[in-house]
Amino acid sequence: MPSPDVKGAQRGYIIPIGGAEEKIDKPMILQRFVDLAGGKDAVICVIPTASQLDDTGERYEKIFAELGAGKIFSLPITERADAQKQEYVDQLEKSTAIFITGGNQLRLSTILGGTPIVTAIRQLNAKGVHYAGTSAGAAIVSQHMITGGNTGIVPTANGVSLAPGMGLINTVVIDQHFNQRNRLSRLLSAVSYNPFLIGMGLDEDTAAFIDGDNILTVVGSGAITIIDPSDIDHSSMADAGGDEALTLLNLKMHILAPGSRYDFSSKQAYIK
Amino acid sequence: MPSPDVKGAQRGYIIPIGGAEEKIDKPMILQRFVDLAGGKDAVICVIPTASQLDDTGERYEKIFAELGAGKIFSLPITERADAQKQEYVDQLEKSTAIFITGGNQLRLSTILGGTPIVTAIRQLNAKGVHYAGTSAGAAIVSQHMITGGNTGIVPTANGVSLAPGMGLINTVVIDQHFNQRNRLSRLLSAVSYNPFLIGMGLDEDTAAFIDGDNILTVVGSGAITIIDPSDIDHSSMADAGGDEALTLLNLKMHILAPGSRYDFSSKQAYIK
Repeated sequence: MPSPDVKGAQRGYIIPIGGAEEKIDKPMILQRFVDLAGGKDAVICVIPTASQLDDTGERYEKIFAELGAGKIFSLPITERADAQKQEYVDQLEKSTAIFITGGNQLRLSTILGGTPIVTAIRQLNAKGVHYAGTSAGAAIVSQHMITGGNTGIVPTANGVSLAPGMGLINTVVIDQHFNQRNRLSRLLSAVSYNPFLIGMGLDEDTAAFIDGDNILTVVGSGAITIIDPSDIDHSSMADAGGDEALTLLNLKMHILAPGSRYDFSSKQAYIK
Repeated sequence: MPSPDVKGAQRGYIIPIGGAEEKIDKPMILQRFVDLAGGKDAVICVIPTASQLDDTGERYEKIFAELGAGKIFSLPITERADAQKQEYVDQLEKSTAIFITGGNQLRLSTILGGTPIVTAIRQLNAKGVHYAGTSAGAAIVSQHMITGGNTGIVPTANGVSLAPGMGLINTVVIDQHFNQRNRLSRLLSAVSYNPFLIGMGLDEDTAAFIDGDNILTVVGSGAITIIDPSDIDHSSMADAGGDEALTLLNLKMHILAPGSRYDFSSKQAYIK
């Protein structure tokens, strides 16, 4: 379940990014994030837990500073014990926006899952603090998170692995590096387990800026692919062998270039 | 335009195969083709023009013989002059089924295009002679043939090259080795040029057995992906830069595992 609405508050933006976002030359996505966070009044918290590189947090601190963010700090959470520290929760609560870096999404779910840090992120987002995450930081956004699976086009029953994510949104399953790594197969497998899920495939350097009304706007240089299985007539998922091609009849698909929008509530796509 | 109906005749099957069909161990597709052709009463004409290997025709002759075909012969057409020979047309006209092998589809269109051989194939199919083609021999079936393009998922305006094919069917654009070579991007580009086209992506070892009523049944070990763009709300094809991601709203997609059917006339998909 997503965090309940906080009375009188507008939920902050939720911004999954498909990985490999431009950082130097016209970094559209990161600039828009910094601007939303408040620009010179922004307080951005970077959580580099997914990465195993020591300087990931520091790197984003520099980038956000160059883009005009007033204050940026990282929380060096590398183990579950770190994610229990009240001191970190207190710091997090001063932020206007939170950024989770790329790396391994299973590090995010295994280290952050069920900790006060995740509870704080959910509550803060519900109260208006913006959340952005790239690659692993995008995958972890949804309640049902893809951790691995087949490449290609055609889905199979065994074609994807799911794990619980952070659940900022719950009716969407997110994949990243989508066009670059040919991940339609695993996204189709994921949505066909249970067609209440909408599949969202994010290309690299492409972000979904999802506002408090659950309307996303595409920003970046690639596309977002939406798979809407809600009108599926038939799925062979329950009967098919694990590696057999599935039959899925009547999927709806939208390819959204930058500027296009999608309303997760009405399931309608719009041009600019 | 497809060949006009011949009065009182039922059109023969049109059987595009996605390449790499099983030839030895339970060759479902080729066996069904031989059976349709008449089994021991079959007269199968193999056209190996797409291939540049000398023994491609002979190889299929042996396979079809092992599968019980009564008579098989190859037409060694390697240049345009060969495709003008009345002797070859006369031989072709004795066949109950025609098989075009894989190779390079541009060899098929440049060598066979506009020759009496193609005219004969179209007329024979309209009169009830079955046509099967694998890989290049599948691509050439349609009026609008894909000759190259981008791999991946997301379409672009420059993402596919088309050339005129043989036109046994005209409202379908066919791609082959579909899942194996990640060809959704180029198929989406092709159908978004003009949404009267239905896109059909054939996996390897997978065939569309299309009957005289334009209903296909999937045979083989993979899937057929159908892209139906007829309800598209918006395409940015006319305005997008050549390599920019396109916006395409409201595509319909079906993934058809073996046994599933699709009616090209009503644009409806069915399970077995």
